[in-house]
Amino acid sequence: MPETGVDTESWGWPTIDAGLLNPLGHGSREAQLTSDAAWLQALVDAELALTRALIDAELVPTWMTAVCDELANAAHLDLAAIAAQGRGGGNPVIPLVKHLGVAAEAVRAGASDHIHVGATSQDILDTAAMLVAHRVTAEITTQLTDLTKTLALLADEHRDTIMAGRTLGQQASPTSFGFLAAGWLDAVLAVLRRLDEVHNALPAQLGGAVGNLAVLTEIARARRTGTPAQHTVDEVVQGYARHLGLVAPPLSWHTNRLSIAELAGVLASAAGVAGAFALDVSVLSRTEIGEVSERLGAGEGGSSAMPHKRNPVSAVLVVGAARQAPALVSTLLGSVLAEDQRPSGAWHAEWKPLRTLEGLAVSAVTGAASLAARLDVDSDRMRANLEVTDGLIFSERVTTILAEALGKTAAFDVVQRASREAFETNRPLQIVLGGVLASDGRDDALLSRIWTAFTATATADLGQSSAGIDRVLARYRGQCVEADAAPDPIRTAR
Amino acid sequence: MPETGVDTESWGWPTIDAGLLNPLGHGSREAQLTSDAAWLQALVDAELALTRALIDAELVPTWMTAVCDELANAAHLDLAAIAAQGRGGGNPVIPLVKHLGVAAEAVRAGASDHIHVGATSQDILDTAAMLVAHRVTAEITTQLTDLTKTLALLADEHRDTIMAGRTLGQQASPTSFGFLAAGWLDAVLAVLRRLDEVHNALPAQLGGAVGNLAVLTEIARARRTGTPAQHTVDEVVQGYARHLGLVAPPLSWHTNRLSIAELAGVLASAAGVAGAFALDVSVLSRTEIGEVSERLGAGEGGSSAMPHKRNPVSAVLVVGAARQAPALVSTLLGSVLAEDQRPSGAWHAEWKPLRTLEGLAVSAVTGAASLAARLDVDSDRMRANLEVTDGLIFSERVTTILAEALGKTAAFDVVQRASREAFETNRPLQIVLGGVLASDGRDDALLSRIWTAFTATATADLGQSSAGIDRVLARYRGQCVEADAAPDPIRTAR
Amino acid sequence: MPETGVDTESWGWPTIDAGLLNPLGHGSREAQLTSDAAWLQALVDAELALTRALIDAELVPTWMTAVCDELANAAHLDLAAIAAQGRGGGNPVIPLVKHLGVAAEAVRAGASDHIHVGATSQDILDTAAMLVAHRVTAEITTQLTDLTKTLALLADEHRDTIMAGRTLGQQASPTSFGFLAAGWLDAVLAVLRRLDEVHNALPAQLGGAVGNLAVLTEIARARRTGTPAQHTVDEVVQGYARHLGLVAPPLSWHTNRLSIAELAGVLASAAGVAGAFALDVSVLSRTEIGEVSERLGAGEGGSSAMPHKRNPVSAVLVVGAARQAPALVSTLLGSVLAEDQRPSGAWHAEWKPLRTLEGLAVSAVTGAASLAARLDVDSDRMRANLEVTDGLIFSERVTTILAEALGKTAAFDVVQRASREAFETNRPLQIVLGGVLASDGRDDALLSRIWTAFTATATADLGQSSAGIDRVLARYRGQCVEADAAPDPIRTAR
Amino acid sequence: MPETGVDTESWGWPTIDAGLLNPLGHGSREAQLTSDAAWLQALVDAELALTRALIDAELVPTWMTAVCDELANAAHLDLAAIAAQGRGGGNPVIPLVKHLGVAAEAVRAGASDHIHVGATSQDILDTAAMLVAHRVTAEITTQLTDLTKTLALLADEHRDTIMAGRTLGQQASPTSFGFLAAGWLDAVLAVLRRLDEVHNALPAQLGGAVGNLAVLTEIARARRTGTPAQHTVDEVVQGYARHLGLVAPPLSWHTNRLSIAELAGVLASAAGVAGAFALDVSVLSRTEIGEVSERLGAGEGGSSAMPHKRNPVSAVLVVGAARQAPALVSTLLGSVLAEDQRPSGAWHAEWKPLRTLEGLAVSAVTGAASLAARLDVDSDRMRANLEVTDGLIFSERVTTILAEALGKTAAFDVVQRASREAFETNRPLQIVLGGVLASDGRDDALLSRIWTAFTATATADLGQSSAGIDRVLARYRGQCVEADAAPDPIRTAR
Repeated sequence: MPETGVDTESWGWPTIDAGLLNPLGHGSREAQLTSDAAWLQALVDAELALTRALIDAELVPTWMTAVCDELANAAHLDLAAIAAQGRGGGNPVIPLVKHLGVAAEAVRAGASDHIHVGATSQDILDTAAMLVAHRVTAEITTQLTDLTKTLALLADEHRDTIMAGRTLGQQASPTSFGFLAAGWLDAVLAVLRRLDEVHNALPAQLGGAVGNLAVLTEIARARRTGTPAQHTVDEVVQGYARHLGLVAPPLSWHTNRLSIAELAGVLASAAGVAGAFALDVSVLSRTEIGEVSERLGAGEGGSSAMPHKRNPVSAVLVVGAARQAPALVSTLLGSVLAEDQRPSGAWHAEWKPLRTLEGLAVSAVTGAASLAARLDVDSDRMRANLEVTDGLIFSERVTTILAEALGKTAAFDVVQRASREAFETNRPLQIVLGGVLASDGRDDALLSRIWTAFTATATADLGQSSAGIDRVLARYRGQCVEADAAPDPIRTAR
Repeated sequence: MPETGVDTESWGWPTIDAGLLNPLGHGSREAQLTSDAAWLQALVDAELALTRALIDAELVPTWMTAVCDELANAAHLDLAAIAAQGRGGGNPVIPLVKHLGVAAEAVRAGASDHIHVGATSQDILDTAAMLVAHRVTAEITTQLTDLTKTLALLADEHRDTIMAGRTLGQQASPTSFGFLAAGWLDAVLAVLRRLDEVHNALPAQLGGAVGNLAVLTEIARARRTGTPAQHTVDEVVQGYARHLGLVAPPLSWHTNRLSIAELAGVLASAAGVAGAFALDVSVLSRTEIGEVSERLGAGEGGSSAMPHKRNPVSAVLVVGAARQAPALVSTLLGSVLAEDQRPSGAWHAEWKPLRTLEGLAVSAVTGAASLAARLDVDSDRMRANLEVTDGLIFSERVTTILAEALGKTAAFDVVQRASREAFETNRPLQIVLGGVLASDGRDDALLSRIWTAFTATATADLGQSSAGIDRVLARYRGQCVEADAAPDPIRTAR
Repeated sequence: MPETGVDTESWGWPTIDAGLLNPLGHGSREAQLTSDAAWLQALVDAELALTRALIDAELVPTWMTAVCDELANAAHLDLAAIAAQGRGGGNPVIPLVKHLGVAAEAVRAGASDHIHVGATSQDILDTAAMLVAHRVTAEITTQLTDLTKTLALLADEHRDTIMAGRTLGQQASPTSFGFLAAGWLDAVLAVLRRLDEVHNALPAQLGGAVGNLAVLTEIARARRTGTPAQHTVDEVVQGYARHLGLVAPPLSWHTNRLSIAELAGVLASAAGVAGAFALDVSVLSRTEIGEVSERLGAGEGGSSAMPHKRNPVSAVLVVGAARQAPALVSTLLGSVLAEDQRPSGAWHAEWKPLRTLEGLAVSAVTGAASLAARLDVDSDRMRANLEVTDGLIFSERVTTILAEALGKTAAFDVVQRASREAFETNRPLQIVLGGVLASDGRDDALLSRIWTAFTATATADLGQSSAGIDRVLARYRGQCVEADAAPDPIRTAR
Repeated sequence: MPETGVDTESWGWPTIDAGLLNPLGHGSREAQLTSDAAWLQALVDAELALTRALIDAELVPTWMTAVCDELANAAHLDLAAIAAQGRGGGNPVIPLVKHLGVAAEAVRAGASDHIHVGATSQDILDTAAMLVAHRVTAEITTQLTDLTKTLALLADEHRDTIMAGRTLGQQASPTSFGFLAAGWLDAVLAVLRRLDEVHNALPAQLGGAVGNLAVLTEIARARRTGTPAQHTVDEVVQGYARHLGLVAPPLSWHTNRLSIAELAGVLASAAGVAGAFALDVSVLSRTEIGEVSERLGAGEGGSSAMPHKRNPVSAVLVVGAARQAPALVSTLLGSVLAEDQRPSGAWHAEWKPLRTLEGLAVSAVTGAASLAARLDVDSDRMRANLEVTDGLIFSERVTTILAEALGKTAAFDVVQRASREAFETNRPLQIVLGGVLASDGRDDALLSRIWTAFTATATADLGQSSAGIDRVLARYRGQCVEADAAPDPIRTAR
């Protein structure tokens, strides 16, 4: 028996996740928005919105409004008991209805009869999931919008900051840091557009036992005799959704899980663009590259073993979070295959992965926004790194110039041979290529044009870099700046 | 050494996948649209569209048009050689350019200099991927549209076909088969809308080595001196996309993989709705349920061991295909984390999963459309199955009626007790509940209302079933029928 | 602004997961074994085991033993603060060392200098992960062993309980319920064997900053001069592992993540066999099949909408849990690609998925053990269901008999034709086939042998069913019964 | 309509995958071992092994041996037709049995009656899958064994090649390249051990329709009257497995998919260790690090745009392949949840992912073996890179020395402060720390010991690096060298 300091037998039911294994969560609103407490609140919100909609539709007495007001704060409920009792029926709504009913009766006798009317557990749980998603996507939008501001500034400010473009880890051709920032920005803007669509389409769920609202229809028929039942039921569904800020669905979606699939997709995209940006930062801040670094506060970036360490800790944590998202999406997509009118496991397999995915996405985008705001750019190091290859990085540019004289194929061939020789003899490409061309009898005009191509300072040689930056910034202004009539950060910064 | 009939040492390089392990592929256009031949054609399409755009922009001589026409059919290229030579450079574009160049020179000397101008391998491969995706999403749209026609007919025709709604595998409350069909239809319509968006947004890729089109800009500057280079380059990008039927992107997206992520999402959704429908068919065609069956042709649905077997083979194969999609999406989402200006592995990890996912989606939706068209509905069996529980399936309906008299909580409690007694004593709920209510001194009017609730024929008791069907059919007409001005299949069928 | 009862802005950092979305967790030891509290305890266990090993190796003063004793219970530490401070360095070990250091100094001045000596954060976190895994795999073994007991009893007791074997959802050929139980048991036994291997191979981690234990070596050289440093270091590594009940690794495994991969695999297999059993239960307990059911306690299996519902709620929840496992394995396998001497994200992406996977596996196997113990088997219903197909289920058996007379191909053909006719005319296969054979002039002896084949009672016709059951039970006895010298449950039950 | 060069309508059924999108496949045996042709051969091998086992057990006439010999080569069958006809029954075995039957009759009338006796489709397909797996795991073992040879040489040769150890992308502490190689080797050796276990446990499948071998038992009873049927059946099962080199399972495993799960796990581990090694190579060969490079042949590593490029193309392709493996494992693990006696989709969802995973694993390990054999190590560059941080990389070593004088906490604090000052003032840590210590009045002995710690050449300071290498090499010799009595490559190389 190993010697350890704990007698696990005596443990009660402790909290599983308080954030110990997700350092990135702290500093984000992950826990606030996706915790069990947040879910319980959303479940209560859903139940009470239903009662309120029933009051509006004259199916439940108006005095229930006051009862709803009393019950509104889920913090009064016993989360632990509800969680524990969820096992009997297979979901937390069944005990929640009981707990809410007891609380309602305490406010006014008979009130419990007007809660959960016409609904099935899945109506409430799915609606709560959409409410949580509504809040989560709003937060992600806020964080990504923050991120766009910083990236827009970086793109504009560094449009002339020349650096090595890299492909397959090798220096390839010159580019600018502003162009990289514009690329990150472009991706974030695309996610923001999709987020907006998904956020605004999140549907409430209301179908009753098998999705056809049979009970609610019967009640409408019995209690509001002057109005066609269908009309009353429509009123309830619309009102329910409206009270929650969600969309009223044309049909219940108990086994049509596309809303979850689309939500999962955009959450993974949000985590993905955050992760892609952070991954670039982690690469560019490698000791031997050192072109960017994360500005660290006191106690940040340290190591328990190495006193000198200045780790790009936010970048690494954002990458770590983003790597966890895709698999969770696959589980949620797997639940699109939902049989019957409520499936035997597929639905139950959605809850935890959805919550985890939302939490990771919130943490990742919050971390990325923070990282961008603390990004130091070392343009001197970028310039210096351009010289590491002794001119090889300019091979494409040189080939283009030569191609006008020699044709593309011949030019490529000449530069390839010269590059190999330069590499093998450790001499600058400029020198080797000059020699080759001279011995081929090329004229001086060509030689001198080649020569200038080896100068890193010529931003004119960066092609559409600046035009591309402008295009993305224009999109940014249209999408983010004008949207909230905020002062243009780029102009303000200048 | 085991005795087997093969000396694998002597094998050449055989075809990996000709469809043996994907029986569903046969009967679909999977192979035509996603095969290596289809990819090679798309790669050639991309290369030639670039040359044509360069001709339009006056950067390449007009005589290249005839060369492009000659080279257009990829079937003339040596697919096997190109595949084999892809290893040297890490992708098939590098040998493709060489093979195309040789073919071009054979048409006219010097022609090879005008192919792949300003492009990098990823430009061509990504564009080809989008072309394949364009064709694949079009085919999926066709198949799903076919599926909607059948589902719309089923929804309309079976709106009064009462059957047991089932939750967690248990009979729950009555519903109609038309309502189930409307649910499937609703999901397919949603995927069709999203498919349309994604299809129309598929972007061409053109960025050059590090995404800034530096070479193309330099060439524009050199060869078309009267026009600002940026203007010429824009012309090329627009023309390139236009020749291919793709969207011209504002920025190259070498490391912004959201287009792939969104494509993957909608492909999984398409496979998912096909799979969800097929899963329901496979459940409803279980021997003991027998409510639907797949109309089988000669030699279909058989077994190698059991001569009587009539397996729901299409349903099973569609489910089998759909189960493979989510994981492939996760791999593609993982590649959103792409570092540098072209990543060291993330990009390379996209090609096969994307192709496989596309193939599975084409096969799944084609199979689902075929399955729907061959679906036999046994309404007698549906009616008979409603009687399996001796009235328990009407418990919700009865409770609703009782609740008007007793209040919801008391009614639920009474019916729950009676249900348990009925279950334990094997007597009809109707009888047991009647006894309980009578002994409680309930009046005859209530008893007789309860009694009628046990009649399965009352479609009025199916709540919003019919209204829901109408809503989905209206959406179907607006989205599918009016769109192509086809005759309304529902009216035609009546 | 939607009207909801919560002002999320004012929330503090609530618990993310207290079990609300995992009803199956309650009733299992998931939370005790995988919670943040359990992880914190394991982290402390790891730190103190290191100090104790250093004391044993004479590198740290013996008075530290008393300090370790004082610090052993992690409940004295501020979990929330450590979790929150983890962000600065990217993992919880860095703040843990500080908190432990403060607590150590409070016990004796200078004690903090003897904690975390020679270690890096990853040493402690990886070791804690293995400790948690050690406890989790032990618990899974306990639960699966419980499950084997029930399954062994079911296999033995029901070896003659004939039921329909089903393939692709269709009745295929007769089998026995005992044979099904033996199949489940066989799978569980295989997982138990693998669990044992993995459990006993879980390695401690100790490598220092870059894995070579340079600091520890230097300390050994400085503080224990008479002994070769390598020898002392080996002593420390061995002692560290021994104090924790883990294996001392030949090399640090900071970027060799195969232990995690193997652990993940067996956890998924454990959840998988639990889920496979539960899936069969959920299918067999469908209303129309009704061959097994879950014995429910008070308040279990109910619905919030339908008072009659008796849902197979444990089966469904186990399936729901098992469906979440595979994707988490894929994330963990993805982290096998770990670069450098500690990777930038891959390692960080392991923590949460591993914990979640462990929790799901514990819940799933505990749920399955409970489900098996509460399984009611309805052998009458099994017998009745054999008659649903009017004899078609005996087609294979009949064909075999006929094949001896007609040859296999001809027999298959005759029975296939008769089956089709029986199906289309709704007549028993027995009758139709008798007619066909009679009109073919087959003799009476053959006809009467065919006739007896349609009798469900002949367990002799179940082939190797009973022999297979015996084989699995023998394996069970060898593996589970003899192992713990427990009384044989099968004999006891008789 | 976009202008493209292809009329896809007219296409026939082309080959889906001939390797175009998997450049790494060429140069490996992927296609030979996992192609449709290989699967067809394995299917034939399985069918004929069954017939041969039946001959051995006297259930089938001995003249069938000659028929089996005639049918042994699957190349004589029409793969395309079998693939196409698979759709009717849902798997390729049903048409295969027909095609084999026709071929058998052509050899000798009546022969077809002795093929596929007592078997169901899944028996043959599962067994073929295991045969393919047997060949694939053997090939992976061969390739990984090759890889171990190179890695063992690198580990031994470079035990004194000092380089920067890196954590989170930052230089951390010195290590040796040999130690890195030993780490890779250690992981490969672990996979080889597990591969051996899995390879040797691959089971044949034989159960008949519902797994109980009822037909075979009946035949044994009818045809071999003197022997108990169970005994004869056992003989058949054992013989069947023996003819194929597979293990005879105690029970059919139609719905016990653990063998697939374990196979999937070890395939992913094999791809994973290959990918982890390749990922390190791709990082270390970054232009700015340049410590290793891939020796490229003619036409390798090039780019279509940049003539100077020398891409680490094998490393990138291996990483690309390895990234695709984990998701495929998750699909296969998902199929562990298999209901009934043959599931409706879960089984069908295994075939393609398993084949793809096997192909990727073969390609990845072959690529890694080739990469290792072509790895150039630049020890000068490694030495030079150690100087990039101006001494910061020695901070841990210095702290350890100081800790003996000042205590661990104080030493860490002093070096952390000095490191920050060195970083901010761009001065060597050596100088800054010397100043701090001098001004603190530390004695010269301490200062001089600190001073020597900044020397990169001291391999004695690499801790257990050399001992660890020796431990792994000893394991390598025991596992790989002695196993095949090959000359020890390390000694040979010396």
